[in-house]
Amino acid sequence: MAAPSRELILYAYWRSSASYRVRLALAAKKLPFRTVPVNIVTGENREEAHVARSPTSYVPSLVIDGVAYSESIALLELLDELYPDPPLYPRDPFARARVRALVEIVNAGIQPLQNLAVVRHLSEDEAVRGAWTKHWIVRGLGAFDRAVAANHAAGARGDYSYGSSLTAADLVLIPQLYAARRFQIDLGAFPHVKRAGETALAYPGLDAAAPEKQPDALPPG
Amino acid sequence: MAAPSRELILYAYWRSSASYRVRLALAAKKLPFRTVPVNIVTGENREEAHVARSPTSYVPSLVIDGVAYSESIALLELLDELYPDPPLYPRDPFARARVRALVEIVNAGIQPLQNLAVVRHLSEDEAVRGAWTKHWIVRGLGAFDRAVAANHAAGARGDYSYGSSLTAADLVLIPQLYAARRFQIDLGAFPHVKRAGETALAYPGLDAAAPEKQPDALPPG
Repeated sequence: MAAPSRELILYAYWRSSASYRVRLALAAKKLPFRTVPVNIVTGENREEAHVARSPTSYVPSLVIDGVAYSESIALLELLDELYPDPPLYPRDPFARARVRALVEIVNAGIQPLQNLAVVRHLSEDEAVRGAWTKHWIVRGLGAFDRAVAANHAAGARGDYSYGSSLTAADLVLIPQLYAARRFQIDLGAFPHVKRAGETALAYPGLDAAAPEKQPDALPPG
Repeated sequence: MAAPSRELILYAYWRSSASYRVRLALAAKKLPFRTVPVNIVTGENREEAHVARSPTSYVPSLVIDGVAYSESIALLELLDELYPDPPLYPRDPFARARVRALVEIVNAGIQPLQNLAVVRHLSEDEAVRGAWTKHWIVRGLGAFDRAVAANHAAGARGDYSYGSSLTAADLVLIPQLYAARRFQIDLGAFPHVKRAGETALAYPGLDAAAPEKQPDALPPG
């Protein structure tokens, strides 16, 4: 069955984790969309036009046929309900709970603490910001690794974050590992995270969602 | 149709927001469960037995017929899938996205920043911790208020957080307002939040979930 054709516009910032999650979902589902960059470094996101799309002022916002929706995890769930192929959540409710728990380990346990608005409020000192961010990424990836190990022990084996197919857990892990690289975090202590991240990144078509391929990407360095 | 009978054990701390959310869902659905207190102030949550139930070491964990599940939002969604009455999420996917966005404004936008582990890592100074926590609660409740106003403008009217019935958005708002009271935050600037919180708290049976009614609650003061 062909998916209904809707106009999709993503208001996003190239290096934002939450924006990257939604791009990955759109890429996995092969959905055409247009990107409108919102510069969170210069504060464009705090302007009235963006706050009308996203009440927190954060990116991303996905505008579907002219109506704005926000919060990346709500968007992953919505895209999965509107476009079920390929599924981002397993059918079994208990397996869905495992995937959602992995999602939340990143979404509530790491990302809010590395958010630009949060580190800016924390300190003006780059070294303080960096140490803080690293601390929460390392703590959170440790939890993610333990959760994957526990799921394996319970029988949900496979090389992705949960089992043997791509799920929403992978779509939040990939951007988190992109952030971990920026902070030079060694993944040696997190073998399940490392394997899942590599497996997910190799999923066909996801490279189009990479930060450096976005229209507002800055050159490296 | 009678819901299947499962043994439910909630590992929780009385004053934890995330624990309170899950108690509210259990109360709304009239599900019998047993509470096992986990003291996050003394660090009982970081012991091996609890980490096996919750990979982040955070509370709560819900043990269903002997199997542990964690992350409060994953638990709300799971309970709603296992016990659909009363529903915590609307049927329409776009309305579900609105409820999930409200949930995330609290779950990702406020709670991680007021988390005990986070404020302890931030500073040893109670005044610094308090100012930090207040900042993020005020910012987040402002976003929640704007989101409710936008939903009203789009036609989803009613006195709850979303529309005219209890949803998961209310179950995260109630604990957030409990925390806001602890930090003496004036809700005058957030009329939609205030009304939704009062409406939700009056929902039959939810008072049993209140922090001060839990077995590990400390006396006031």
